[in-house]
Amino acid sequence: MNPEVNFCSVCGAKVVRKVPQGDSMLRHVCDACETIHYLNPKLVVGTMPMWGNQVLLCRRAIEPAYGKWTLPAGFMENDESVGAAAIRETLEEACARIALGDVSTMISLPHISQVHVIYHAKLLDLDFAAGEETLELRLFNEEEIPWNEIAFRTVRLTLQHFFADRRAGGSFQFRALELQPHE
Amino acid sequence: MNPEVNFCSVCGAKVVRKVPQGDSMLRHVCDACETIHYLNPKLVVGTMPMWGNQVLLCRRAIEPAYGKWTLPAGFMENDESVGAAAIRETLEEACARIALGDVSTMISLPHISQVHVIYHAKLLDLDFAAGEETLELRLFNEEEIPWNEIAFRTVRLTLQHFFADRRAGGSFQFRALELQPHE
Repeated sequence: MNPEVNFCSVCGAKVVRKVPQGDSMLRHVCDACETIHYLNPKLVVGTMPMWGNQVLLCRRAIEPAYGKWTLPAGFMENDESVGAAAIRETLEEACARIALGDVSTMISLPHISQVHVIYHAKLLDLDFAAGEETLELRLFNEEEIPWNEIAFRTVRLTLQHFFADRRAGGSFQFRALELQPHE
Repeated sequence: MNPEVNFCSVCGAKVVRKVPQGDSMLRHVCDACETIHYLNPKLVVGTMPMWGNQVLLCRRAIEPAYGKWTLPAGFMENDESVGAAAIRETLEEACARIALGDVSTMISLPHISQVHVIYHAKLLDLDFAAGEETLELRLFNEEEIPWNEIAFRTVRLTLQHFFADRRAGGSFQFRALELQPHE
């Protein structure tokens, strides 16, 4: 997912891999300008937009998982909050305006160095439309969800927990979870 | 916080700032090897380690906020989960072994492109000790907390919510919050 680090982005010199003083991990270090180039996990943020009992899913127009169904979500940008990223991604992928609710799930995917955060949300109107990365959109009742055509495990897990909480009739629980590569 | 991006880390050529096709934001792009160098927010992860009614705070041995009190926390690394990062940081900064609990707060700091996630935790023993980035450690009852000497607003907020929930006698709430620069 991350581009290779062969050269220093600050000064252009070749980087070496070594453990900096006071650190315990191998880093990409520039001996010329002394910059340490840390690599950190990325946040993927999205929403579960509801219209009454129905949830809005997007069919992906891009790889990975082209043609599969997903919730509107994408990489969080610098200079924004997690909530603002969720609203922006929902607008970009589904052209949908929402009232943002509580956080539903925070799921770690250590093997790809990502953390997925999905919010509850209510659609403010039905004027949604496919964004550039979406083939089509549709509102689904629980029994209509195309479980075998869901793009990502984090989306499937989030939907499963949502419907389980709803069937239990109680309040929606926030869950912090972790997925291994072949779980 | 991020090093400058003047050169391509993959091939060493100069990068330009432009909006890639299908994107809407200015990025650092390498015209030589076509790599787009995205910059994304970083996760800072930590714990609130309790021993009975007391919370373990660490006095910082590094800048920023040298000499101020904080909860054990630090930058999440690639290839780990959020929970694993919380346990590792608690071990590194406080040499403390914990049972990790639920997530207490997730606080966005868009002006510095960080998201802070703090977990509830219980100390497993009293064999804690100052790590390399810590001057000293101490267990505090609520009335002893050095509120004017707390290192970061995210730590203060997390502690305030924890004690408020505890005084209310109910269960601890997960909170997703956002802080502006001068709030």
